[in-house]
Amino acid sequence: MFRTHTCGELRHTHVNETVTLAGWVQKTRKMGGMTFVDLRDRYGVTQLVFNQDVNAELCEKANRMGREWVIQVKGEVAERSNKNPNLSTGDIELIVSELNIINESKTPPFTIEDDTDGGDDLRMEYRYLDLRRSSVRKNMELRHRIAFEVRRYLDQQNFLEVETPILIKSTPEGARDFVVPSRMNSGEFYALPQSPQLYKQLLMVSGFDRYFQIAKCFRDEDLRADRQPEFTQIDCEMSYVEQEDVLNLFEGMMIHLFKYVKDITIDSLPRITYADAMRLYGSDKPDIRFGMTFVELKEFVGGHDFVVFDSAEYVGGICAEGCATYTRKQLDELTDFVKRPQIGAKGLVYIKYEADGTIKSSIDKFYTADDLKKIAEAMNAKPGDLILILAGSKVKTQKALCELRLEMGSRLGLRDKNKFAPLWVIDFPLFEWDEDTQRFYAMHHAFTSPNLEDTPYLESDPGRVRAYAYDMVINGVELGGGSIRIHSSELQHKIFRLMGFSEEEAQYKFGFLMDAFKYGAPPHGGLAFGLDRCVSLFAGLDSIRDCIAFPKNNSGRDVMSGAPSQIEESQLKELNINITLPDIE
Amino acid sequence: MFRTHTCGELRHTHVNETVTLAGWVQKTRKMGGMTFVDLRDRYGVTQLVFNQDVNAELCEKANRMGREWVIQVKGEVAERSNKNPNLSTGDIELIVSELNIINESKTPPFTIEDDTDGGDDLRMEYRYLDLRRSSVRKNMELRHRIAFEVRRYLDQQNFLEVETPILIKSTPEGARDFVVPSRMNSGEFYALPQSPQLYKQLLMVSGFDRYFQIAKCFRDEDLRADRQPEFTQIDCEMSYVEQEDVLNLFEGMMIHLFKYVKDITIDSLPRITYADAMRLYGSDKPDIRFGMTFVELKEFVGGHDFVVFDSAEYVGGICAEGCATYTRKQLDELTDFVKRPQIGAKGLVYIKYEADGTIKSSIDKFYTADDLKKIAEAMNAKPGDLILILAGSKVKTQKALCELRLEMGSRLGLRDKNKFAPLWVIDFPLFEWDEDTQRFYAMHHAFTSPNLEDTPYLESDPGRVRAYAYDMVINGVELGGGSIRIHSSELQHKIFRLMGFSEEEAQYKFGFLMDAFKYGAPPHGGLAFGLDRCVSLFAGLDSIRDCIAFPKNNSGRDVMSGAPSQIEESQLKELNINITLPDIE
Repeated sequence: MFRTHTCGELRHTHVNETVTLAGWVQKTRKMGGMTFVDLRDRYGVTQLVFNQDVNAELCEKANRMGREWVIQVKGEVAERSNKNPNLSTGDIELIVSELNIINESKTPPFTIEDDTDGGDDLRMEYRYLDLRRSSVRKNMELRHRIAFEVRRYLDQQNFLEVETPILIKSTPEGARDFVVPSRMNSGEFYALPQSPQLYKQLLMVSGFDRYFQIAKCFRDEDLRADRQPEFTQIDCEMSYVEQEDVLNLFEGMMIHLFKYVKDITIDSLPRITYADAMRLYGSDKPDIRFGMTFVELKEFVGGHDFVVFDSAEYVGGICAEGCATYTRKQLDELTDFVKRPQIGAKGLVYIKYEADGTIKSSIDKFYTADDLKKIAEAMNAKPGDLILILAGSKVKTQKALCELRLEMGSRLGLRDKNKFAPLWVIDFPLFEWDEDTQRFYAMHHAFTSPNLEDTPYLESDPGRVRAYAYDMVINGVELGGGSIRIHSSELQHKIFRLMGFSEEEAQYKFGFLMDAFKYGAPPHGGLAFGLDRCVSLFAGLDSIRDCIAFPKNNSGRDVMSGAPSQIEESQLKELNINITLPDIE
Repeated sequence: MFRTHTCGELRHTHVNETVTLAGWVQKTRKMGGMTFVDLRDRYGVTQLVFNQDVNAELCEKANRMGREWVIQVKGEVAERSNKNPNLSTGDIELIVSELNIINESKTPPFTIEDDTDGGDDLRMEYRYLDLRRSSVRKNMELRHRIAFEVRRYLDQQNFLEVETPILIKSTPEGARDFVVPSRMNSGEFYALPQSPQLYKQLLMVSGFDRYFQIAKCFRDEDLRADRQPEFTQIDCEMSYVEQEDVLNLFEGMMIHLFKYVKDITIDSLPRITYADAMRLYGSDKPDIRFGMTFVELKEFVGGHDFVVFDSAEYVGGICAEGCATYTRKQLDELTDFVKRPQIGAKGLVYIKYEADGTIKSSIDKFYTADDLKKIAEAMNAKPGDLILILAGSKVKTQKALCELRLEMGSRLGLRDKNKFAPLWVIDFPLFEWDEDTQRFYAMHHAFTSPNLEDTPYLESDPGRVRAYAYDMVINGVELGGGSIRIHSSELQHKIFRLMGFSEEEAQYKFGFLMDAFKYGAPPHGGLAFGLDRCVSLFAGLDSIRDCIAFPKNNSGRDVMSGAPSQIEESQLKELNINITLPDIE
């Protein structure tokens, strides 16, 4: 055996045992005639001791070792005189009697510590060294644990994991496909799946009843910080269910994950309609770790010759508890915040409900103290609170107020990364109207079932039709979403017609699924969760990149391996393709 | 709720309960005034009863239903008068009071039964219907179970599942890559991984210690029955281990799988060296469900003027127990068998050790009864046995004798699909010599460590150097294999040199792994199992195709979806590639 224990395993109970360890040299310190080495592996760090007086040759050998050398040592476990309570192995040290240097190491380009001195680019180039840092590796351990617990829960619930193909047919709907030229079928291409959507619905037609897959998906879109060309989805579908069944089952999954991965007990997930989410939070992915919900003030503010409010489609406010003490400078900061181009409010109105019960505001010119008190009452404000009001067109103002609410939440420390507030957002609209193309688009996707209560309005007022579509949201992040699908071909064709697809187009876009539906499609529905997002949320990370072992940069490049790269002429020839020069315009 | 129970759930204890079921109409039978319908879902079949006398309208509605219609029924569970002991729900039937026809179905192009009338092509085209057959679905259920138990075992053993990228750099070593043109990096391509080999070794350099992944792999090779362009590998790697550690851990995995998936107890896996496997079975993947091992007879057969034996490099025999009764016709069949071009023996020598102790053979002209008895003794034959002997060049004859042994095993019913005989084949040679290119190739791969006992012969006699390489074999099928890797750059460069790679070539082929190895590579080793093969073996199938949900045919085509297919001109333009006409030669 190469080692008898790992570097995270030895405790006080092992004292006087002879053990063999192996790992990386984290740090070497010389003190007097002693050399102390921190030996590291995945499981922890153990202190090694070499004594110049006892074995000079061995100690010299240890002194020659550099950072990240790989060694194997044999020795006796001893109690430490100065114990390190921050280290699980801090009670002991290893008095080394044999040292085997297995591999030397060049000096790493950055320190392999939780707080490294390496910049992003350097760490990406040497990702294999970055992954040695325990803070990075812990994200991968968390990822493993989440995926494992997802599988354990779904297996208990009778779901079957089925692998669907990676080499599929390119479909013109949705985002841009990555394509793969076929050598055996010249001039033809496979596509990489953007999601297993069609296949999971086929599996329902096949009677699989409960399917899931932790599936790689691919989208050839321009990348942002939180997007990767390949990402991983927890993809699920169920037959013979109604929306309620799907919500309950996956609520159960999230409760399971919090319990077994984070040791957090969550009883149930609140549900909020899309309409309420927009009304109260200005967002379909509300962060409900804190309240500060919107109050519509239009009815309280009219008729005071304040043209900003009088002309506004929407006037809404939030009440920041205990913030009446905000200074002019702080209020100016908030005003600057909402006036940023990406938020785009024209200005910010505030009402301070001072602790002594008096009221001060930026609109004293138009409103009496009594008027303002009425607004404060409508806002449920208490003495000491600060009311912040935005006005303008409804959608834009709600969006800006949403940002302001999140900003206030952050300032007040209400967005603790260790607190988790999951919920369901339900009753999404079936369609969204697109001004540019003057047509309705499916908000979720073309197979989403309308809420059967609303089908009478499908033709007369498509915009008011709600869908059986739902999102799971945690801390303001959309973790997943899905819908009950249409299983009636009559209804499906009506929806296609409303979206402006001809029969031919529908057949062209969704051909083999449409064919399959003719052979007895069961009622079914499902959803998909972003695994990368789930991990980054559980880990409290800002970007999904940190929870992917080998991510690509914003140009879709793996700087470590150098992918993508030029390939050989012979490969192109076999595939019967040529590279053309980019158009220069 | 859409249904209160599944179609496989109702038992005698449910009698008199009112339940709701949903599923597919498997079969409808009219008898007297009664209509019986078999309702099917993933979980089973339940008999529905409609009585013309009780509810004529309902019964008429039921009579209109065709095969594979999707229905929902409500009714009362009743005890069946003629119970069906072959059906888990055979004790009961459902007296239907409400019938909701959810979806009609076109008549399926083949019957949805275990024994279907559909041919291969038709079933592939309508794969979503083929998957409805419970025999096919059961393979997918088995696949799910195996993958789940692999994960459960490896998780218990502290392995982390890490997802490695699908869009990687094309490397010129190995089989042909599938490539993916990059839109963001014009003229450059990603490759799809043939295996996560480089990444898993990088993860060892990163200190992950124990890694696994159930990973999709891709090879653009011409296809045979048992190959698919995309396949799935159980990919594993460990650090700070010796061969023994790897063998023990994955022996444990196989024992776990047999226990939890097949309910078969296996105590341990025998180990056989490559040399012994070739000597005793003529194969590096011996089927050890039965004995009948080779005996080398050269020393017993010389000096009798039988030129076939005297001139042969190798003479070997097998002893078929109780087969002395074989007729001339049966012996002729065996002779024809070994003379087939793909086996290529020149002829077959037999010795019948009759039950009465007398001996008959096809070489009586050259050998006396005593001579033949000595051969029979060398073969450990008993009265009643049949000895079959082949002679010729060593490698070719051993291969032919291997085929003959398997044929005899099949004839004697010794290759029961429900019996499993796993083993390790170890001590593979490090290199194989290629006559055509006059160079040594790595038998496993270029990173495989030589057996340290044999390193003295690396330069003087490379052919005799054994590797720390091992295969797991079950029932004559190679299920997986791997090796201890080289972690010393000095040794690695020596091996590259022996394989005729220059430093530059090695750097070009394995660049970023070679770089990573400079920063403290730990000793490591691992292996990979073919998941598809594992499932097909556990299921007793002949081809891996039947355990893949949506397989491709021998032209790499998914006939159901029509992939691969032509893509739009705009897609090609965005990717800056052109299709060229195939060379016509």
